Amino acid sequence: MTALPSVSNSITVRVDLPGRTTAVSELSGAVERNGGLVTALDINHSDNDRMTIDVTAAARDADHAAELVAAMRAVDGVEIRKVSDRTFLAHLGGKLKIESKVPIRNRDDLSMVYTPGVARVCLDIAENPDDARRLTIKRNTVAVVTDGTAVLGLGDIGPLAALPVMEGKAALFKRFADIDAFPLCLDTKDTEEIIRTVKIVAPEFAGINLEDISAPRCFEIERRLRDELDIPVFHDDQHGTAIVVLAALRNALRVVGKELSEVRIVQAGAGAAGTAIAILLAAAGAKDIVLSDIHGVVEPNRPDILAAPGSDLAKLAAATNPEHVTGTLKDAVRGADVFIGVSAPNLLTGDDIAGMADDAIVFALANPTPEVDPTAAAEHATVVATGRSDFANQINNVLVFPGVFRGLLDAAATSVTIDVMLAAAYALADVVKPEQLNPAYIVPSVFQPDVSKVVARAVAGAVRGDESDATD
Amino acid sequence: MTALPSVSNSITVRVDLPGRTTAVSELSGAVERNGGLVTALDINHSDNDRMTIDVTAAARDADHAAELVAAMRAVDGVEIRKVSDRTFLAHLGGKLKIESKVPIRNRDDLSMVYTPGVARVCLDIAENPDDARRLTIKRNTVAVVTDGTAVLGLGDIGPLAALPVMEGKAALFKRFADIDAFPLCLDTKDTEEIIRTVKIVAPEFAGINLEDISAPRCFEIERRLRDELDIPVFHDDQHGTAIVVLAALRNALRVVGKELSEVRIVQAGAGAAGTAIAILLAAAGAKDIVLSDIHGVVEPNRPDILAAPGSDLAKLAAATNPEHVTGTLKDAVRGADVFIGVSAPNLLTGDDIAGMADDAIVFALANPTPEVDPTAAAEHATVVATGRSDFANQINNVLVFPGVFRGLLDAAATSVTIDVMLAAAYALADVVKPEQLNPAYIVPSVFQPDVSKVVARAVAGAVRGDESDATD
Repeated sequence: MTALPSVSNSITVRVDLPGRTTAVSELSGAVERNGGLVTALDINHSDNDRMTIDVTAAARDADHAAELVAAMRAVDGVEIRKVSDRTFLAHLGGKLKIESKVPIRNRDDLSMVYTPGVARVCLDIAENPDDARRLTIKRNTVAVVTDGTAVLGLGDIGPLAALPVMEGKAALFKRFADIDAFPLCLDTKDTEEIIRTVKIVAPEFAGINLEDISAPRCFEIERRLRDELDIPVFHDDQHGTAIVVLAALRNALRVVGKELSEVRIVQAGAGAAGTAIAILLAAAGAKDIVLSDIHGVVEPNRPDILAAPGSDLAKLAAATNPEHVTGTLKDAVRGADVFIGVSAPNLLTGDDIAGMADDAIVFALANPTPEVDPTAAAEHATVVATGRSDFANQINNVLVFPGVFRGLLDAAATSVTIDVMLAAAYALADVVKPEQLNPAYIVPSVFQPDVSKVVARAVAGAVRGDESDATD
Repeated sequence: MTALPSVSNSITVRVDLPGRTTAVSELSGAVERNGGLVTALDINHSDNDRMTIDVTAAARDADHAAELVAAMRAVDGVEIRKVSDRTFLAHLGGKLKIESKVPIRNRDDLSMVYTPGVARVCLDIAENPDDARRLTIKRNTVAVVTDGTAVLGLGDIGPLAALPVMEGKAALFKRFADIDAFPLCLDTKDTEEIIRTVKIVAPEFAGINLEDISAPRCFEIERRLRDELDIPVFHDDQHGTAIVVLAALRNALRVVGKELSEVRIVQAGAGAAGTAIAILLAAAGAKDIVLSDIHGVVEPNRPDILAAPGSDLAKLAAATNPEHVTGTLKDAVRGADVFIGVSAPNLLTGDDIAGMADDAIVFALANPTPEVDPTAAAEHATVVATGRSDFANQINNVLVFPGVFRGLLDAAATSVTIDVMLAAAYALADVVKPEQLNPAYIVPSVFQPDVSKVVARAVAGAVRGDESDATD
């Protein structure tokens, strides 16, 4: 599978070139012969002899971008003046700003939003802490918390290098759910320190979104924070992924006419996402789930699992795999109805998919390179989905986390339950109407309007249902 | 000293009243007879018999506001429909919002600001951490950190009740210096936990503004964070206050024609602000500073100070009071050239001020009630300043912290030195031109344009000077 040129690897190159008739076409020809895609040509300056042009071109990756620049330089008479990377340009100065919602034009304004007027608001909250949701940013503010240990597919790059992702996440929270999210990139990998830090900063937030924290620490951190805080704590890599996978699987099963309770599901990856997917699918009624990881199929008698009784993986082994499958991922996939990969590139081939049950469903979500080439998989499976935007059925957490938090905040939720997650998944699935459903359209587009509103409404309803159950 | 009606205690009262000619004037008359100030009358509805009016009125405080409502209710035929508090209305939903600086309109935008494009930015920062100041929010972002233990004059009201002040502070950072400031209200009073928490969240910030943390913990917290972080740490209650006091004193001494090195200065209050003022004044050349606190004049042989050798107060006692003054504040003030109060209301009388040297300078900064009635003080002193906006010469940190941080951020400062603070104070003082200077105008107004720019330029220059000294 060859990557296609993408705007995320787009460069803008300022070049001087001779004013001859063919110069511009020679330049764009050089880019295109080398596999680049010219997306804009802007004349910056021109006189009788020479012209200056800004050439914007999409490349496959950074190395390819360098090749394109070299190809342009090789055109007779061309001089490269400056190379700008559009993605880097978009990041200059960071992606978030903090604005005052109240005007401070004069002394009167100042005396209300700051001293002396603010003192009465402080005293009111000191007496009635619940008023903080009325009179402060708490009501609409979420912390996006990471330690930078499992960022995208990049691994442990540290808190500062993780910041662009967390800023992007906060920007998505605003774009899709009008939530004020602030990144907190923590300079520690110690489980207890992360828990303590989040608890110490928690009072001003209405929710905590954990992000890109590596397994197994993420399980303990989330569990403890859920127990010890009175606001919802949601690890998006786990539950956001699980919710969108369940939504997509619900619709994929509708396409092939199978029942969740009857299919055999094989998962690749037993980390944060894999574990959460297995738990949520089971809660939704799945009976036969087999997980595998780098050591093969997860089952209680595997040596490394026997050696770690009580571990998260041991618990997972005990709760799944009812048929006691052993061996490799390839062994497990044979005859399975559903494959869900949240693991590593190129673990399976088209032949492996051919060995699955009829009307197989394949979710190959490793990014940027899926567990199996989606084109090869589509020759044998009925429904194929990936995490990529350049294939049909992109399974993307952006469909989930904005709406989930919007609903949690609207309902002033104190926790996130499995009922809430199921409600979110079912609402998301039902955004695709029965008459729209087909093998290439099992989840809505990220930009489809109202997705987050539909999810939010379902989540808020489930929160209120849970709470009325609790007080019944 | 009676408080005047203030917009910070303003209410809007919706009333129904009969449509008779005199009804409106009876209503506003009732407010004014009771000491309120009607600032707006908005007709909401009217018919032949009755009308509905929104009466906005300024009161002295919350109790006074209730009296005004009662007075309106007593007017014949008037019914009160609803009472709204303008300050509370201004706080609804909090005072800050977080916005995306980049558009997310379509897939191309998404692929640049989030996955997959953002990965290259992350990798760049992982390799070149300094690039975080170019490619993330770090460059312009400051944390406003409190534990809620010394909020305004309210004392220890906790982190959540402190949030409205910290939001207001962040709003001022934006308004006066275009800085993105985010409040962090910490749910701990433990010195070590506060230090650890700030260090853990620090990587993404370009500066730390400590706020409303009680003494003596604030000294240790600031000292340690300065030593252990590579970004500037500034406790505004200490250094912001000290800088604006030095600026004001510099100009006040110009007014009376005295030299800082020759005057006797008596301070009331030896907490966070008092200590920082004494240190900065000494650095600026003051030779004779006497501090006092609730136990009297600070001197090495005072029993409580003898009993705590090595304490911050003991160090202060050793470094000040060269004439070995003992006794009470009133004793110390006799014959002094300058009184600076950052302590408690009504410690001194006009008679005490009359006993000071000729051309005395009085800064009575306790809020809302100064150490001495400023009107009484003005009968005997040449220059009088307070922290209040309803007297001449308001000494307000808002004149300082926005410009100081703007300068620190512009220069990518790694610390705040005493040279930087002196530069800020001198620049602020010089905003008042020699031809403008008089006893009632020793500091510029908070809303005077360019104050923060002037301070920022001086601070950035001082930072660069310090750094070139360090590398000489």
